[in-house]
Amino acid sequence: MENFIFQNPTKLIFGKGMIAQLAKEVPAGKRVLVTFGGGSVRKNGVYEQVKEALKGFDVVEFWGIESNPKIETLREAIKLGKEQKVDFLLAVGGGSVIDGTKLIAAGILYDGDAWELVLQGGCKHALPLAAVLTIPATGSEMNNGAVISCKATEEKFPFYSNNPVFSILDPTVTFTLPKWQVACGIADTFVHVMEQYMTTPGQSRLMDRWAEGIIHSLIEIAPDIIENQHDYDRMADFMLCATMGLNHFIGMGVCEDWATHMIGHELTALHGLTHGATLAIVMPGLWRTLKAEKMAKLVQFGERIWGITEGDDNARADLAIEKTEAFFRSLGLPTRLGEAGIGEETILEIERRFNARKVAFGENQNVTGAVARQILENCK
Amino acid sequence: MENFIFQNPTKLIFGKGMIAQLAKEVPAGKRVLVTFGGGSVRKNGVYEQVKEALKGFDVVEFWGIESNPKIETLREAIKLGKEQKVDFLLAVGGGSVIDGTKLIAAGILYDGDAWELVLQGGCKHALPLAAVLTIPATGSEMNNGAVISCKATEEKFPFYSNNPVFSILDPTVTFTLPKWQVACGIADTFVHVMEQYMTTPGQSRLMDRWAEGIIHSLIEIAPDIIENQHDYDRMADFMLCATMGLNHFIGMGVCEDWATHMIGHELTALHGLTHGATLAIVMPGLWRTLKAEKMAKLVQFGERIWGITEGDDNARADLAIEKTEAFFRSLGLPTRLGEAGIGEETILEIERRFNARKVAFGENQNVTGAVARQILENCK
Repeated sequence: MENFIFQNPTKLIFGKGMIAQLAKEVPAGKRVLVTFGGGSVRKNGVYEQVKEALKGFDVVEFWGIESNPKIETLREAIKLGKEQKVDFLLAVGGGSVIDGTKLIAAGILYDGDAWELVLQGGCKHALPLAAVLTIPATGSEMNNGAVISCKATEEKFPFYSNNPVFSILDPTVTFTLPKWQVACGIADTFVHVMEQYMTTPGQSRLMDRWAEGIIHSLIEIAPDIIENQHDYDRMADFMLCATMGLNHFIGMGVCEDWATHMIGHELTALHGLTHGATLAIVMPGLWRTLKAEKMAKLVQFGERIWGITEGDDNARADLAIEKTEAFFRSLGLPTRLGEAGIGEETILEIERRFNARKVAFGENQNVTGAVARQILENCK
Repeated sequence: MENFIFQNPTKLIFGKGMIAQLAKEVPAGKRVLVTFGGGSVRKNGVYEQVKEALKGFDVVEFWGIESNPKIETLREAIKLGKEQKVDFLLAVGGGSVIDGTKLIAAGILYDGDAWELVLQGGCKHALPLAAVLTIPATGSEMNNGAVISCKATEEKFPFYSNNPVFSILDPTVTFTLPKWQVACGIADTFVHVMEQYMTTPGQSRLMDRWAEGIIHSLIEIAPDIIENQHDYDRMADFMLCATMGLNHFIGMGVCEDWATHMIGHELTALHGLTHGATLAIVMPGLWRTLKAEKMAKLVQFGERIWGITEGDDNARADLAIEKTEAFFRSLGLPTRLGEAGIGEETILEIERRFNARKVAFGENQNVTGAVARQILENCK
């Protein structure tokens, strides 16, 4: 096991009716910037519940943080926050709204252009923020990460700041999510777990078991929730899995991969494809490409998750990859670049970008531009 | 899933050589009361590492917090802390030292006698504390609980305060633990997990999987670490399991039992038997007694942990209990009252105490004095 430092101070407030707790949790005397996405919260009752709970608070609203939040939009929110001298932020929405709000919280305290913070990858100071989550997927509600895009340059980069002070998760708000978002949320959670699991074997048996525990749960609930989104206990399971998939609870003392994400971000930046959908395409291709170095873990995964106990290691690994790809397909997601209308040109552009940035990803830091290209060729 | 609120702010600093981090983590300018047990830290190098890291800090030492920390001893430490005007505490030891220090941290800010705080079950104010853990077992290093004993009255009660600000866990310090303490630590961790798991089925599939993940890990590593305590990765697995077993990570949205603990505390209070050893006796007896109400979960546990897939539910539950008892025996622990020299008189005294206190424990709040007596009869 590697040495590690773990801390996750976010207060998780989970369950039916919990949005009302905002009245107790938002610190008194603050001027609060409440941030929203495109308006679905007006239809599903979340906006009304938030408004009701914040009666008597000093509130400024900002609407319109889009999926894959764009710096162009966030600059407007930062301008508003500075003008209005807000000192607390509340993100009401999915991972994109929470991610965007993490940058807003830093940008309000920064004199330069906030895109500089994104390029630096982090910030020194940020206002406190909290969240009301509406889409289980990114884990942003209980971690310090964000991913911010730039429309002008078609780029998308990670940015790190503070954890939300608290996050409220009411599974009933997921009942009306579009099926596509549920499917992408499941894929996103699945791949978050794999980025922390499908690496070197034998690092931590507990972290392996916990990662496998999230995957077992996702596989069990997926058919039900794709059919019936109104099953409270299933949606609660899903929502908890998504949060626990990326809050460092399964990453203690183990190395991490994240190459699938870095390649997936490029597909979103260049084609606007939903994050979870990019991952369902890239991860099986990455496993096919790096099968030799991930062999032992693929075999363990195949046995514990898919019950594969026959054949040699190579055959088992192949079957584990096939079954994982089939799982993503069962969610209604594309798993090949062609299905998403992505061709050779994009593959070459991603190779070019990785080379130009002189980056290499993965637990062995060997996913260079050339390897990313091989991976994408294996996603055709 | 039940609604829940989860927050665990403790910073976990884990790995070889991490005790040196004290120099960075203890807040500058504080007057620190460092608390110790009986002196084993002088032999295993921990004391030297702590002293080295705290060079330049303003430090007062208190020695002699015993197993099952006694209010009689803690009063002395509280007196010293008040006299010396300390404002930060560092517990260096096992769960007993950390538990005792939680009460000291509260007692220093309390005008009355600290036993009053224990009888109240909690406190309004407490000084910040941190820990260097030397025995994996209680989880006290990452939770807000403590259990405090009174020599005079032969009583032992839980007390709740704050989490440690940070806790340092270096698995190498466990290499020289007595075998008995390793065995009791494994049993303690096992039963902590079961108190949060062996209740109503179907509450949270993820929490079930995570609880089972700790148990799988314990069962896998137990034979190795009983044989060879110098295997770093195994001891690291054990240490992480013990902390994760009782920091609320596996208790989100599920009901809890704790009747085994409440009965076990009485056995310790009356006979001085080590905590983990009391649990290995009581839990199988409690399962035998409450088999009907725990049936569905016993069957799930039997299948997922012990691979029991044949026979009717009753036979499976019986076998799951047998295998669990055999596991405790494989650690060298007694699993029956007689082996620990405990007889009928103690059973009657525990029934009398529960009745006098008008308490009932367990997820269904039905473990009254009479039921506790039945359970103990089933531990003979």
